[in-house]
Amino acid sequence: MESLSVEEIELILDTADSLKEISTRPIKKVPTLRGKTVVHFFYEPSTRTRTSFEIAAKRLSADTVSLSASTSSMVKGETLIDTAKNLEAMNPDAIVLRHNSAGAPHMLAQLVDASIINAGDGMHAHPTQALLDMMTVREKKGRLSGLRVAIMGDIAHSRVARSDIVAFVKMGARVILAGPPTMIPKGIETLEAPVTYHTREAVKDADVIIVLRIQKERQQAFLFPSEREYAQCYGLTAESLAGARDDVLILHPGPMNRGVEIAPEVADGPYSVILEQVANGVALRMAILYLLLGGAR
Amino acid sequence: MESLSVEEIELILDTADSLKEISTRPIKKVPTLRGKTVVHFFYEPSTRTRTSFEIAAKRLSADTVSLSASTSSMVKGETLIDTAKNLEAMNPDAIVLRHNSAGAPHMLAQLVDASIINAGDGMHAHPTQALLDMMTVREKKGRLSGLRVAIMGDIAHSRVARSDIVAFVKMGARVILAGPPTMIPKGIETLEAPVTYHTREAVKDADVIIVLRIQKERQQAFLFPSEREYAQCYGLTAESLAGARDDVLILHPGPMNRGVEIAPEVADGPYSVILEQVANGVALRMAILYLLLGGAR
Amino acid sequence: MESLSVEEIELILDTADSLKEISTRPIKKVPTLRGKTVVHFFYEPSTRTRTSFEIAAKRLSADTVSLSASTSSMVKGETLIDTAKNLEAMNPDAIVLRHNSAGAPHMLAQLVDASIINAGDGMHAHPTQALLDMMTVREKKGRLSGLRVAIMGDIAHSRVARSDIVAFVKMGARVILAGPPTMIPKGIETLEAPVTYHTREAVKDADVIIVLRIQKERQQAFLFPSEREYAQCYGLTAESLAGARDDVLILHPGPMNRGVEIAPEVADGPYSVILEQVANGVALRMAILYLLLGGAR
Repeated sequence: MESLSVEEIELILDTADSLKEISTRPIKKVPTLRGKTVVHFFYEPSTRTRTSFEIAAKRLSADTVSLSASTSSMVKGETLIDTAKNLEAMNPDAIVLRHNSAGAPHMLAQLVDASIINAGDGMHAHPTQALLDMMTVREKKGRLSGLRVAIMGDIAHSRVARSDIVAFVKMGARVILAGPPTMIPKGIETLEAPVTYHTREAVKDADVIIVLRIQKERQQAFLFPSEREYAQCYGLTAESLAGARDDVLILHPGPMNRGVEIAPEVADGPYSVILEQVANGVALRMAILYLLLGGAR
Repeated sequence: MESLSVEEIELILDTADSLKEISTRPIKKVPTLRGKTVVHFFYEPSTRTRTSFEIAAKRLSADTVSLSASTSSMVKGETLIDTAKNLEAMNPDAIVLRHNSAGAPHMLAQLVDASIINAGDGMHAHPTQALLDMMTVREKKGRLSGLRVAIMGDIAHSRVARSDIVAFVKMGARVILAGPPTMIPKGIETLEAPVTYHTREAVKDADVIIVLRIQKERQQAFLFPSEREYAQCYGLTAESLAGARDDVLILHPGPMNRGVEIAPEVADGPYSVILEQVANGVALRMAILYLLLGGAR
Repeated sequence: MESLSVEEIELILDTADSLKEISTRPIKKVPTLRGKTVVHFFYEPSTRTRTSFEIAAKRLSADTVSLSASTSSMVKGETLIDTAKNLEAMNPDAIVLRHNSAGAPHMLAQLVDASIINAGDGMHAHPTQALLDMMTVREKKGRLSGLRVAIMGDIAHSRVARSDIVAFVKMGARVILAGPPTMIPKGIETLEAPVTYHTREAVKDADVIIVLRIQKERQQAFLFPSEREYAQCYGLTAESLAGARDDVLILHPGPMNRGVEIAPEVADGPYSVILEQVANGVALRMAILYLLLGGAR
């Protein structure tokens, strides 16, 4: 998200808006990327994001191949660079990469000719998630600029948070971060997003609330005492939502821990756009593939 | 199988009969479901059924995406309903679901708009198996009504048995169940199928014998003493087959334990239609997909 | 490789040469195998070879289904023959098989009607690797006959070595084998390829050097003392390469252990054609599929 200009972001969102309708047709398929090869290479398990990308590629008629590191002999004793160079030798047009190391997609993009699409790298970034979040908010609000966006939860370990902060700030939103002190990284202030440790303060007057997933492994690391206590202090409930604006939007990147970071009545309530996010995810990824591979290339 | 009428079953079998020929063409593909998205979501491992569904979908030109719970982060801390709602937001036309909980596909069908196809749920039902079994028998015998059908083995833990009993009884066949007392559930009589504990009694005058797979885990549960003893008492051998009709058909849902529930000379013998079942499975699943997705929808 | 004639090998290589260009087009796809079903059945994990085959099949417009034994219930208690007969009943046109037992593809080819393509069987053979190695060498040198080809490393446990020896000898090359005595099988002389235990002797005047991958498990089996010592004695380095011809080609089947069997400066150096091998792998597998499935069949 750092390297994209405001104009580029708007182009991606406009393109996604226009491609969204394809997924509602009886024949959900256009021939745009026929004969293109898209490799989905996931070092970390992911069904949601991989499925979204695969469906996006297929609706544009691209051929897809899916690799996962867990079943992959390709990576035995092989550097990521060698793996990527090997894949590249098979002439894919794009490699969608999820990797547990921050910066892996960036490094590869400089070494191989195929388009590299970051599907999440370590705790660094998840740019297509930030883009689909913006697409969803813009669709409902008509704008991003000037909106008050609260991002709540485990800011420290969330690549979604990191990409959302950069993206929403860049588009002129006012971002506020909230979470337990153990989950707010030091130095986050440099990102022009103020921090609070109080849910109500974050929620107050919010146009948009992005609730982050709690990873239960963090409890073992003593970052929060129990799910029950996390829910009480930082879970978004109908009660804690009271101070938000009347037309607030609730987003969550999924999968949700119902009753922990988000109460069921909020997840399924009238402000929730969580399933719209998923639907827009397909359109947004179609836009990324289209813009990278669909031109005169 | 409970909810289908006799006429609906006949429509499915007739459709499958007419689609079967596609798989024998040099170009095994028709454009009927072009631009449809079929998601195969398997919480339990299955190669046979998943492969059959995938090939069926591809021969109808549908796009397919395959998820398995074992490699899926989608299901971490997420309810089945949330997982399904997420998938649905990506606008699939059908979700083929295998799940270890009885009733999961039924529940989902009431909650999501996409067609839900039950590819086996717990010990409850495996309707496409029952339909392909009926297709295979009808193809060879010309009818289902009035046939004597013996279902042999672990009736208690078999979703195949449960679906076959309902289906064959509904179509007018006379079903008899056989197996060790530890594997015959109480109350099965309500299903209008008499029970015997003697293989010869079940086999006598049978037009059709459906041999169920023994799951070796059951031995740990002390449901049978050893494979050897199971084979002696309940395995279908050339000898135990002696009382059946001259034109008896032998079915098995696979994978077979040769020498346990079925002797090799029976599995490979002249009465076996086990590989026809597999071939018909593709045609039957093409019919299901065609009838659900191929119309004016 | 044993059963192919010189003419058949030349036909395969010529076909691969002519199909290679498809992968460099903007639309990397021809309709040749539309409506054909190719099943990729991998009992051993393999990403590199499976991806290469899948991309090859898709660029020819075949439908692909991918099975792996690790996630497969098909193989529970089922013989390989039953598994294959079941797959065959679904009317695939080809089954690409990788198996840990030597001879498995050969056995299947005699039992089922579908074309069986050996994608590596135990320590026996990996014929498509040998063919793509020959394609790469012929492309660069214009011929195979008369070339001096050194194959270096763990000859004993390498199916790549076994296929390469037979293939290059058949095409008129002079093959020399090198490696530690623990990794050179007894009786290898019958293959018309002399043996040396000294890297420099193998490298001397070589036109082609095929470096084999060291499998680290072998160290546990005491076949070599340490990676460091293996690298010093048998690793191909800029220094040990000194005696080779000025236009020597370096091949490696991948994945590479950089700094063990091959030094980075050699892997990335001007003589390396390792990535060309990968690119040619796709074309070669397209040729195999085309020749088996593309005709009047």
